[in-house]
Amino acid sequence: MSSTTAKHPDVSRRSERSRKAILQASMELVGEVGYPKLTIEAIAARAGVGKQTIYRWWPSKAAVLLDAFTEVVHDQDYDSGFPDTGDIEADLKTVLRATADEFSDTAFEAPYRALAVAAATDPKLADQFVTRLREPGLKVYTERLRSGQEAGQIDPELDLDLAVELLLGPFQQRWLSRSGPLTHEFTDRLVELVLRALAPRDGKP
Amino acid sequence: MSSTTAKHPDVSRRSERSRKAILQASMELVGEVGYPKLTIEAIAARAGVGKQTIYRWWPSKAAVLLDAFTEVVHDQDYDSGFPDTGDIEADLKTVLRATADEFSDTAFEAPYRALAVAAATDPKLADQFVTRLREPGLKVYTERLRSGQEAGQIDPELDLDLAVELLLGPFQQRWLSRSGPLTHEFTDRLVELVLRALAPRDGKP
Repeated sequence: MSSTTAKHPDVSRRSERSRKAILQASMELVGEVGYPKLTIEAIAARAGVGKQTIYRWWPSKAAVLLDAFTEVVHDQDYDSGFPDTGDIEADLKTVLRATADEFSDTAFEAPYRALAVAAATDPKLADQFVTRLREPGLKVYTERLRSGQEAGQIDPELDLDLAVELLLGPFQQRWLSRSGPLTHEFTDRLVELVLRALAPRDGKP
Repeated sequence: MSSTTAKHPDVSRRSERSRKAILQASMELVGEVGYPKLTIEAIAARAGVGKQTIYRWWPSKAAVLLDAFTEVVHDQDYDSGFPDTGDIEADLKTVLRATADEFSDTAFEAPYRALAVAAATDPKLADQFVTRLREPGLKVYTERLRSGQEAGQIDPELDLDLAVELLLGPFQQRWLSRSGPLTHEFTDRLVELVLRALAPRDGKP
């Protein structure tokens, strides 16, 4: 976002306030009206900016939302870093419990569901969703599992991308299809079961 | 469906033809226009019946669609029975490969996606979707895993419902979010990885 690199501090601060207001408004609105009915006009009105301000920085409502989610997810999950206490089971349980809590927060859940549903119907949005949100989100898990491999807790031969799908697929499926509650009990048992698949195979080829 | 128990063979045959035409039309249309825009009127027109015929048998478009999917899924997957050759890995691979093929068939995929997306936005429909389609669909897997437990191939202490979520969650997640291809290579590797989690734990408590 070139606006944040503006030379004048006042302009930069104002731009940053507008940028954050736009992202916040886009999250709120998509949760309220759904993706198909979300408009740049409504985002501008809610954020208290002109719609040209939005068009100057983003080409589409999808781009606004993807930035909004990237920022929220980034702030919450990754700035503090994925925990690495040396205990892979404890660390995965901590993160999945926190993720379950996050999904029980309507302010996050409603817009995220609206975006996931829109992506499920729109292949082009799905592609952006996967590249911008899903892949970076999965990467921190992959890295934690790799550190587990180095510590001898995870099978060194394992396909870590598939391992992360095994961990997150059942969670996301439960969430999106509402086929079961996202309790800590569920996430703990999921981590325990997945780690059985990921453990080193002693003496096996 | 009381219509199928009508006394007169001619009436019964006609009713059955209408019923099948209605179910078929509902599947085609939901794939074409999506669930929100699907109407009983359009289903009736496509099936060549009066809309009162539909309302006599079903209370809503959701009920029509759930019957349509229940029948298709039932015909394709369960009448022949879940394979039980005694080799749990081979049987799960066979079924997941067939499921992947089914999901690459637009005539099935488009309506199923439309229904899954609608269920993701509508908690009441989600509830019916889970009860009518998902739970019976998962039950055949649970039963096959139970037979694997009896054969000593699956941990006898295992929570089989969670085990089935572990197997199907990554598949459904890939499908719905288009985050990866549903190839036989993927389903085979998924089965192999899941079975590592499900195997008996020799000598472990």
